[in-house]
Amino acid sequence: MRKSACSRSLGLLAGTFMLAGVASAAWAEKHAFEMTIEDTRMTLVDKQTFHTFAFNGQVPAPLIHVKEGDEISVHVMNLTSLPHSIHWHGLLQRGTWRQDGVPGVTQEAIKPGEDFTYTFVAEPSGTLWYHCHVNVNEHVAMRGMWGPFIVDPVKPVALERKVTKDYILMLSDWSSEWAEKPGYGGVPGDVFDYFTINGKAFPDSQPIRVSKGDVVRMRLIGAGELTHSIHIHGHIFKVAFKDGRPLPQPFEADTIMVGPGERYDLIFEADNPGRWMIHDHVDSHTMNGEKPMGGLMAVIEYSEIANDDAFYDWKDKQFEPDFYYEESLKKAHGMHEAKVFKGQAIQ
Amino acid sequence: MRKSACSRSLGLLAGTFMLAGVASAAWAEKHAFEMTIEDTRMTLVDKQTFHTFAFNGQVPAPLIHVKEGDEISVHVMNLTSLPHSIHWHGLLQRGTWRQDGVPGVTQEAIKPGEDFTYTFVAEPSGTLWYHCHVNVNEHVAMRGMWGPFIVDPVKPVALERKVTKDYILMLSDWSSEWAEKPGYGGVPGDVFDYFTINGKAFPDSQPIRVSKGDVVRMRLIGAGELTHSIHIHGHIFKVAFKDGRPLPQPFEADTIMVGPGERYDLIFEADNPGRWMIHDHVDSHTMNGEKPMGGLMAVIEYSEIANDDAFYDWKDKQFEPDFYYEESLKKAHGMHEAKVFKGQAIQ
Amino acid sequence: MRKSACSRSLGLLAGTFMLAGVASAAWAEKHAFEMTIEDTRMTLVDKQTFHTFAFNGQVPAPLIHVKEGDEISVHVMNLTSLPHSIHWHGLLQRGTWRQDGVPGVTQEAIKPGEDFTYTFVAEPSGTLWYHCHVNVNEHVAMRGMWGPFIVDPVKPVALERKVTKDYILMLSDWSSEWAEKPGYGGVPGDVFDYFTINGKAFPDSQPIRVSKGDVVRMRLIGAGELTHSIHIHGHIFKVAFKDGRPLPQPFEADTIMVGPGERYDLIFEADNPGRWMIHDHVDSHTMNGEKPMGGLMAVIEYSEIANDDAFYDWKDKQFEPDFYYEESLKKAHGMHEAKVFKGQAIQ
Repeated sequence: MRKSACSRSLGLLAGTFMLAGVASAAWAEKHAFEMTIEDTRMTLVDKQTFHTFAFNGQVPAPLIHVKEGDEISVHVMNLTSLPHSIHWHGLLQRGTWRQDGVPGVTQEAIKPGEDFTYTFVAEPSGTLWYHCHVNVNEHVAMRGMWGPFIVDPVKPVALERKVTKDYILMLSDWSSEWAEKPGYGGVPGDVFDYFTINGKAFPDSQPIRVSKGDVVRMRLIGAGELTHSIHIHGHIFKVAFKDGRPLPQPFEADTIMVGPGERYDLIFEADNPGRWMIHDHVDSHTMNGEKPMGGLMAVIEYSEIANDDAFYDWKDKQFEPDFYYEESLKKAHGMHEAKVFKGQAIQ
Repeated sequence: MRKSACSRSLGLLAGTFMLAGVASAAWAEKHAFEMTIEDTRMTLVDKQTFHTFAFNGQVPAPLIHVKEGDEISVHVMNLTSLPHSIHWHGLLQRGTWRQDGVPGVTQEAIKPGEDFTYTFVAEPSGTLWYHCHVNVNEHVAMRGMWGPFIVDPVKPVALERKVTKDYILMLSDWSSEWAEKPGYGGVPGDVFDYFTINGKAFPDSQPIRVSKGDVVRMRLIGAGELTHSIHIHGHIFKVAFKDGRPLPQPFEADTIMVGPGERYDLIFEADNPGRWMIHDHVDSHTMNGEKPMGGLMAVIEYSEIANDDAFYDWKDKQFEPDFYYEESLKKAHGMHEAKVFKGQAIQ
Repeated sequence: MRKSACSRSLGLLAGTFMLAGVASAAWAEKHAFEMTIEDTRMTLVDKQTFHTFAFNGQVPAPLIHVKEGDEISVHVMNLTSLPHSIHWHGLLQRGTWRQDGVPGVTQEAIKPGEDFTYTFVAEPSGTLWYHCHVNVNEHVAMRGMWGPFIVDPVKPVALERKVTKDYILMLSDWSSEWAEKPGYGGVPGDVFDYFTINGKAFPDSQPIRVSKGDVVRMRLIGAGELTHSIHIHGHIFKVAFKDGRPLPQPFEADTIMVGPGERYDLIFEADNPGRWMIHDHVDSHTMNGEKPMGGLMAVIEYSEIANDDAFYDWKDKQFEPDFYYEESLKKAHGMHEAKVFKGQAIQ
């Protein structure tokens, strides 16, 4: 109700923004996105719900996928009862520091019912992300205010040109004590007891489906409070990018620590048909509350292998094809919402 | 009692396994290992005991030390009253994904009183390890279900060919609240209050003895729940391997963070006779419960320096020569148990 | 009172030390420093005070800034009622292992009222530090017993020769429960609720002032119990040094994890005038107790940008020019105290 009037009246404005003082290349596209922040109830796993402040009603927030040098404007409408902002983590904001989204430093926070338009150039390329910068201990740590921002490079490096399957995995942590107490929580001493990939905990997470011969890119984004130690079974990956930047010398590993705010892009060839775990090796991060073998886990499934073993946890799994943004990443540049991440509006 | 009958009757079988569908090189050896999982009481330090589910009654589990390409079979007998499995962390299981040891994904968990034979090729080379994959929050984090798996490379890199002293250090964490409550524990909010190298806390850990001119390799394995920041005094080491893989460009450091599941091989020349601490720089990890200066600490002792200072904590230390697997690593390839890691059987 | 008699009588001695068995180069300077350890009350932020054992009454401890190969002697007088020592973290102590400062291993702890003189050569070069090695869980984690030790290299690498602004940031964590209970605290289960850069939490930390064209070096030192994930807005930095050692191949990032004991030197060009956050991305580390948006945060201010926005938190900030040691680092080699770090003596 609150939403409709405001976003309708501001919709026109957003299409006609101007970039002030920012040079852009000939190939640059212009993108104008509309975003709301809405009280939204998400389900992490089973019956564990969480009151979030969701961008466009989804957690993770919509994928922004553009090309290096593109001109971006995002019109944000705050439909919650608390102040917010958006920081574009990793974007340089060259010449546009007032678009950086830090309340008390680059702008005033966006008050309830108010709006703000961010205007900037997509630079540099790589795996970036965005999140609220108000009371990050609560809003980022456990109100789901984060989404992926992927900038395709003008000149991709050799390693990434071979990629056939592109996945995004946002890692986060939740303290169920604060699930239904918006405006509170995220304080020293909190016990984190739910752990998610793209907002879902095992077994409500999704398989990552590949075929032999695929070259897989996994974009890991540390979106929460804790550090995760991500292990992939059956493969050695190359750590190819750190924070969106290509490493001068990629190195091999089977486990990678991802700290808050960090991004690692892993690249490996799918050359070993089977069913392979990918999970956090921090042992307690594979819990759902006090129930073992949940949390930050998923399975890489090869199309060559049938999933009909009676013992297989995901034997009858209903597959959601865009859970790792794999479908959205194939679409034209722009902002892409996904049904799988939508929650329930809280009036 | 439970043990004898089963392992005797299965002993013959284990020697006659066959590898299905796995190619192996001409030089490959075949190894057939027998392993039990047993309720075992370990002493971490002083009077702090812990109920573990120990492989062959020891924590860490027996060293498996083979050559790249060797054909391995491990016959496991579960003598505890809870289900288990073994995941071979870092082993590729190329063509043998059903040997990967993940219950609900690659196999059914091994029930109490039942057995399972894992059959696979030792690939890739490097510092690998193995651990249970059932309820990892409890079984890995605090029931001692982990051991080292070292695969010698067919073609060692230059740096490792110089090594004269080879040590394994498995790092782990324990929450004494659950010490005598097997089947429980490892839940969000747990307070970890004991911290060990190869299952022992200072001062019950052991010195690392070197001589001037030695080239030392330390294989650090993050086997527990927490991240450790390992600092070595008096030396700059090269970080030479990550997860068993040689780094394309080793780098120098005096402190290295080791996360859960990660392995780092450090190599340095012992060129500075003295008595040097090696310890976790996470300050509280040098506690035994609430007693300071314990936990994850040891001393590198040079043979050139006498240990007779009156103030030296380890002046009268009884030396256990295989505590860092240094003796076992010199033996012929195979599986090696060590008396120093044996606990007390729980009937 | 306790202090004056002892330090006066020992002052002469300290100027005439001799280095035993240590070769030094022709250009080496000799430095003799006087240091006390004193019960000192520091203010972290607002009204949150902490009882520390401060070197020369300041937290962080005085900057020691010398050249590679210099001969150092530090005469330490313990004026507190608890035992202490000084470990020179990262210094090789080649041939001088008894100067390494580890009680029970290289020396007896320095008892209350007693003194000790450390004598060694400044080697290797880089960002090093020093700290007490007695009951580190309390003395290092939350009694402020740490300071920076910068050794200029004889042959600087190309990247560091371009630096125009040199800053030191020591990161630490505090558990307010133990603020006024010296001799206690730093135990498993502690809740850390204050987080500081150079001993101060936002908004009582200080801006980092640069001008367009500056080449900035930030020397991050993990001096506390926890791991910090430091993010700089608006810039991509090169991770140039790890633990004082130049990386063979610096890599780019916008976020860097700094564990306990680790040091990372970041180098970047100040090419993007604006107001940019630098902060810990561990969300709860931006708290002061239960108050959001404090802790481990600061702002990089460009001289090209006015600070007069009404919304700016630091609009009327009183600037302390040596807060990141930037002035002290320009002085002649030696030991440099700074008024901004001095606390209040506790009698």
